[in-house]
Amino acid sequence: MANSPTGDSVTERLLRVLETFTPTRTVQSAAEIGRRAGLPSSTVHRFIGELVETGLLERDEDRRIRVGMRLWELATRSSAALRLRQAAMPAMERVQAAVGEHTQLAILEQDEALFLERLSSRDATSNITRIAGRLPLHASSSGLVLLAYAPPDLQERVLAGPLHGLTRATITDPTALRRKLAEVRRLGHAVAPGSIEDVATGLAVPVRDAAGRCVAALSVVVARDAAVEAPLAALHRAARDIHSTLGA
Amino acid sequence: MANSPTGDSVTERLLRVLETFTPTRTVQSAAEIGRRAGLPSSTVHRFIGELVETGLLERDEDRRIRVGMRLWELATRSSAALRLRQAAMPAMERVQAAVGEHTQLAILEQDEALFLERLSSRDATSNITRIAGRLPLHASSSGLVLLAYAPPDLQERVLAGPLHGLTRATITDPTALRRKLAEVRRLGHAVAPGSIEDVATGLAVPVRDAAGRCVAALSVVVARDAAVEAPLAALHRAARDIHSTLGA
Repeated sequence: MANSPTGDSVTERLLRVLETFTPTRTVQSAAEIGRRAGLPSSTVHRFIGELVETGLLERDEDRRIRVGMRLWELATRSSAALRLRQAAMPAMERVQAAVGEHTQLAILEQDEALFLERLSSRDATSNITRIAGRLPLHASSSGLVLLAYAPPDLQERVLAGPLHGLTRATITDPTALRRKLAEVRRLGHAVAPGSIEDVATGLAVPVRDAAGRCVAALSVVVARDAAVEAPLAALHRAARDIHSTLGA
Repeated sequence: MANSPTGDSVTERLLRVLETFTPTRTVQSAAEIGRRAGLPSSTVHRFIGELVETGLLERDEDRRIRVGMRLWELATRSSAALRLRQAAMPAMERVQAAVGEHTQLAILEQDEALFLERLSSRDATSNITRIAGRLPLHASSSGLVLLAYAPPDLQERVLAGPLHGLTRATITDPTALRRKLAEVRRLGHAVAPGSIEDVATGLAVPVRDAAGRCVAALSVVVARDAAVEAPLAALHRAARDIHSTLGA
């Protein structure tokens, strides 16, 4: 529908416009959006004007553009992200209260771990995850859990690499990663010391839906040398609670 | 750009498609979407196909359509909703812990109160608000706060009505509403007994940004006959904390 001279659909153009906004780039001029999205300047102003008119983008007093509250509302109110997050929230709060460290909920999305929720603690261990941010499957504890219970074809695709190292402790060897995934399945959780940041260890467990499928990973980030038994017990308890909620 | 024979832009079509999804209607067939969005069946399948291809919508095994996780991610990661919510979250958790009732954060959006966050308590008082849901400005405690500190032209537009009653306690008389808004400004908070649901009283305070503008309302819902002093004190404390965070 409504293809441009270069053959991309308006839907693809919209996607490219939205992709120019990031957690650290929340406001842009129309010209900047056009340049970053690779749109001709002859059409970008009209297209952005349309998006502003419908409220999907917003224009501030300085005529700079941001993602619209209306788009957030429409993308959120019926989303699986919100339903899963609401089912998990009470259990996540209990984990955070018990462990006193950042607590995250992630799902598998386009071969990465996408974070739906993060409860932060003051004075907690360093942690680079963000809500609506992503981490590689092979590097994060959440990713390792999601990958360990993912369909075999997805596992093979990730194992085929490339497996980039974020730190010296990130598993980048396919054989070692295959062994790690088997360990995650055997133990029922992932422990990833220093694989994202040197100072921190990620701990994650699978969250299962009513049918027993792993639909998310619940994780905490503790100091690299911290004891992991109590946090893991809290995570397993929380995953069982969320499973019950999802089944209800 | 790319107008259809009926003159609406593709952006408007997208908006109409997204608006057919609601908190209680999260999955639809392409035909249902087309009918509800008022799109001709000749184009709806191709348009939805494009949206699925870019991940803005998703198709499940039964070929039914839902809002895509990719759209949620793009709409959320750079949004003002997320930044405000993250700034408010620690204070909201303290309110919930102190008061033990549902705790909400709402902003003014298109002449309604749009709820960005809601922390639920088990065994809490009844509460119909949802994340990414809306309530009328004149009826909810959050809405009364947002309206009391809104620009005069917006206040006059709402006062001009219609002011629908949700319960017998909802203020539907413009003069009484004007008086109520003056009271909110004088006290610095809104108390709305039974105006949304007979059994509950809403309590809300303004959240101010670094420049002192009211950018949100923070609220709790207590039982209709509950004491309001302690919850209001907790809300005022939290609003001060969020103000400090927003200024940092």
